[in-house]
Amino acid sequence: MKSIPESLQALVGQAIKRIDTPALVIDLDAMERNIERMARFAQQHGVLWRPHAKLHKSAHIALLLEQAGACGHCVQKVSEAEALAAGGVNNLFISNQVVSPGKLERVARLAKTLYARSGRLAIAVDSEEGIARLAKAMQDAKASNGAIDVLVEVNVGQNRCGVEPGAAAVALARAILAQPTLRFAGLQAYHGGAQHLRSAQARREAIAQVLRHVNRTRHEFDAAGIALPLITGAGTGTMVNEAASGVYGEIQPGSFLFMDADYAANEHDPAQPVFEHALYVKTQVMSLGEGRAVCDAGHKAHAVDSGLPRLHALPPEQALRFENGGDEHGLLYPAREAGNTSGWLPALGETLWLIPGHCDPTVNLYDHLIGVRGGRLKGVVERIFTVDGRGALT
Amino acid sequence: MKSIPESLQALVGQAIKRIDTPALVIDLDAMERNIERMARFAQQHGVLWRPHAKLHKSAHIALLLEQAGACGHCVQKVSEAEALAAGGVNNLFISNQVVSPGKLERVARLAKTLYARSGRLAIAVDSEEGIARLAKAMQDAKASNGAIDVLVEVNVGQNRCGVEPGAAAVALARAILAQPTLRFAGLQAYHGGAQHLRSAQARREAIAQVLRHVNRTRHEFDAAGIALPLITGAGTGTMVNEAASGVYGEIQPGSFLFMDADYAANEHDPAQPVFEHALYVKTQVMSLGEGRAVCDAGHKAHAVDSGLPRLHALPPEQALRFENGGDEHGLLYPAREAGNTSGWLPALGETLWLIPGHCDPTVNLYDHLIGVRGGRLKGVVERIFTVDGRGALT
Repeated sequence: MKSIPESLQALVGQAIKRIDTPALVIDLDAMERNIERMARFAQQHGVLWRPHAKLHKSAHIALLLEQAGACGHCVQKVSEAEALAAGGVNNLFISNQVVSPGKLERVARLAKTLYARSGRLAIAVDSEEGIARLAKAMQDAKASNGAIDVLVEVNVGQNRCGVEPGAAAVALARAILAQPTLRFAGLQAYHGGAQHLRSAQARREAIAQVLRHVNRTRHEFDAAGIALPLITGAGTGTMVNEAASGVYGEIQPGSFLFMDADYAANEHDPAQPVFEHALYVKTQVMSLGEGRAVCDAGHKAHAVDSGLPRLHALPPEQALRFENGGDEHGLLYPAREAGNTSGWLPALGETLWLIPGHCDPTVNLYDHLIGVRGGRLKGVVERIFTVDGRGALT
Repeated sequence: MKSIPESLQALVGQAIKRIDTPALVIDLDAMERNIERMARFAQQHGVLWRPHAKLHKSAHIALLLEQAGACGHCVQKVSEAEALAAGGVNNLFISNQVVSPGKLERVARLAKTLYARSGRLAIAVDSEEGIARLAKAMQDAKASNGAIDVLVEVNVGQNRCGVEPGAAAVALARAILAQPTLRFAGLQAYHGGAQHLRSAQARREAIAQVLRHVNRTRHEFDAAGIALPLITGAGTGTMVNEAASGVYGEIQPGSFLFMDADYAANEHDPAQPVFEHALYVKTQVMSLGEGRAVCDAGHKAHAVDSGLPRLHALPPEQALRFENGGDEHGLLYPAREAGNTSGWLPALGETLWLIPGHCDPTVNLYDHLIGVRGGRLKGVVERIFTVDGRGALT
């Protein structure tokens, strides 16, 4: 638990309007509705859901998701897993490749810790070398047999990590099965690029292709007589397709929790629950110039990899365009094309709420998430979540 | 001082090759050469240098710069100033607008603290309202007369913060002079956009235009009979022009310390010292696929606002192209056009060094900067700097 610095933007019980800027604020009502909708969706489709904690990086949010039915959590980094485990999270899947001996030593230690707590650690692999190194680390740590779940990551079209579908995946499963300390737990089959295809039809087609790769691989496992305990994957963009496939036993969406401007730009798939924006950067106008206002949120306050933030909930006559003002500044101009024909600008000191272009790397810029309830004018700060895995890169 | 986490990538005295990845590494020899060159440059031009700490956010690095002759440090945020002051830095200029009463209360407290230590706090303003609020905060804090230096920020062409040049700037100076707790300290005249104009000629022309705005404003001050103690501004891209102007008494470059890929893409101005890359993201190959390698540095490990990182120092036959692989992955392809005609790829587990596209927001992603010396193969970790101002947004 980090100490609360003097510059913390808010305290529990304070009015929302007193939150100093820039601050990362969660609309708790919207977040809870998103969680309920996801829980219902997973139940209706008979799939487990293991939300991706690379989004929120917070042990307390992970525990809220578990209370709603999440079976565990994905992370991308060993240090994220360590941070969540330190906060009481017991079921974690490192859905990524780890090959450095120093990190694998930490993986083995964490697997033993979670095993002793009746929890589970799982990890993805995509090479013989990765399996051999993991097995050695588990042996060196004198871990119990089967103390870690190992999933073979298959390249289902993203061309990032993952072994090629089919026989190569079976070969890796055999290598895992040959190691007494490792438990073969299934396939990691995730297509990141498909999440952001704008049309629902394009996403359906991309996942149809993913399923061809997955099914070809399943048939190879059948032919080899090796049981496949689980196929896991999917994100917020495509999960309706994987969940309906009858093949995936578990889905891994993360962004549904907060929703960002980039996901909101996707055409809505009618089969998908409607998820709401629940995460905002609160910012303040600190300078006014000729035809512009300047706010205190630049790209140290929001990620720009998926585009700039959008302004939240202004009437057309007050529509504003956000432009890049550098590391510490955001530039606001009247959006005349959207109805702000008078050239209206907010006053000095006025606060505005931004919807981040991409939530995951935005959360990673902050030490705290400020949970609020009751509306912007009368609401209060209800709780503050520590971003336990902030900067957890290793 | 933050505690050292279990996942810290390196310990002092360890071999460089043992630094776990991704890690942000400073080549101390290169950084020290950059500092020496800057100190000599400032001395030759008879200007003070107040390097911008928004780059490194580290009190210990600030103190190294002072030892080399820096007159103090710029920051962009109150919380950055607080973090550096807590680390022993006594002369700070918040080169930005602050208008929220909560932050101004902290500004007043910090001004008193530094004043009591025989240091100084300075701040920029660009509005009557900002001056009135600052003065109120200083009165409420019962600060001594003149306990804070106040500079009028002038819009010299960037169209971000700043009052318009000329009479409007004089009016703000009068408003400062009317407040006993404030000391009018001069003009902040910085053009951020001009730093990144690619040709040296374009940068010269942009600063010639800046100087027209500054000189027009100086003449208004002369006519009003108000002394101008200082004109400050300039960054790594344009400082040769401001330093040679005879008008600027102080320059504020930050990036010279580390140099990033974006600044390196500028045409070198012959009047400028040669600054070297001194900051690297060390990354490791964690997956190999068909014609690609995947490393463990994505855009949570390096900022992308000014483009992707470049690979450092590979011979042409091993030239690689870095492509965006998402939050936690980097994709590496053979750069055939650069001489890697065989399609060479690094092996699984091999480490590579990336030159960030933009250093400032990259540093802001890390809790520590790992200072190394002695070359990548035989060198060791000499010291570890805490990024004291990491996430200091308010």
